[in-house]
Amino acid sequence: MDLYGGRGYEQTTVAEIAKRAGLTERTFFRHFSDKREVLFAGSHELEQAMVAAVEEAPADASPLAAAMAALERIAEFFAERRPHSRRRQAIINANPELQERERNKLASLSVSLAYALRERGVSESRAILAAEMAIAIFKLAFERWLEDAKQRDMLYHVRSALKDLKSVALS
Amino acid sequence: MDLYGGRGYEQTTVAEIAKRAGLTERTFFRHFSDKREVLFAGSHELEQAMVAAVEEAPADASPLAAAMAALERIAEFFAERRPHSRRRQAIINANPELQERERNKLASLSVSLAYALRERGVSESRAILAAEMAIAIFKLAFERWLEDAKQRDMLYHVRSALKDLKSVALS
Repeated sequence: MDLYGGRGYEQTTVAEIAKRAGLTERTFFRHFSDKREVLFAGSHELEQAMVAAVEEAPADASPLAAAMAALERIAEFFAERRPHSRRRQAIINANPELQERERNKLASLSVSLAYALRERGVSESRAILAAEMAIAIFKLAFERWLEDAKQRDMLYHVRSALKDLKSVALS
Repeated sequence: MDLYGGRGYEQTTVAEIAKRAGLTERTFFRHFSDKREVLFAGSHELEQAMVAAVEEAPADASPLAAAMAALERIAEFFAERRPHSRRRQAIINANPELQERERNKLASLSVSLAYALRERGVSESRAILAAEMAIAIFKLAFERWLEDAKQRDMLYHVRSALKDLKSVALS
């Protein structure tokens, strides 16, 4: 990621990334399907953790509460990563291809959350909507967390976005 | 679109599309930036109509009500297009590149709606959330409308999805 930040994502080749990481190009492609994927390493683990949180939510939790459990579960993950996340996001925001990949990841995450909610007996419409609301909350909270001059944590921003969402939905 | 449906999107070349439409390839590219874009012709006009509806919503309409006005404004557009929309969606669903383009369009639409809400004096967080909820409602309603055996119109499905969204947000 230092390479992407210093020289620009477009100008950095897979050969250079692999070299910096002490890998051959062949090994690189065993770990990542392409150059874009490096920036999204770990997203599969995050998704698994979120799905597990939905599965483990109390049986009487509402669909939205179960989806929120997924966001609360991963809030901790971001704790020490603010400077890293800022640099990473600046790279993504500067490149439409990377923004596309990011949107794909979030769309896939939304489908997985909706599926986990369905497994809890939630109707399809409500599962889809709860998952989409959780993704909207996550995106907004993440943006606010990145730029927060007061350095409040991700959990604070997730809860604050949920509060706003409820008030918007009700009005 | 008949070409995409009959031979498959991947197998259809720009030359073939242009020929069928009575255009040269050069003229084709004056109208569409690429092969994908043909399927999203008209999306700019829809976006403009939706933004206008937000701008024209009553001054005392809530952010969500103003965003819903955008969906109600375009519901009419879909009336005669169900068979066409079904064929179009089947092509998109069969191709990851087209799904990516669709997601990009919806993301851009969400940004435009949020911007129009901001112009009404809505705070940034609430504008973003109301726009994202409107997009979630639109996606769900469109899917339900496409497959509705009872042939109920788009407006019915938009309102039904809104009702579900409110109940999920409240629970």
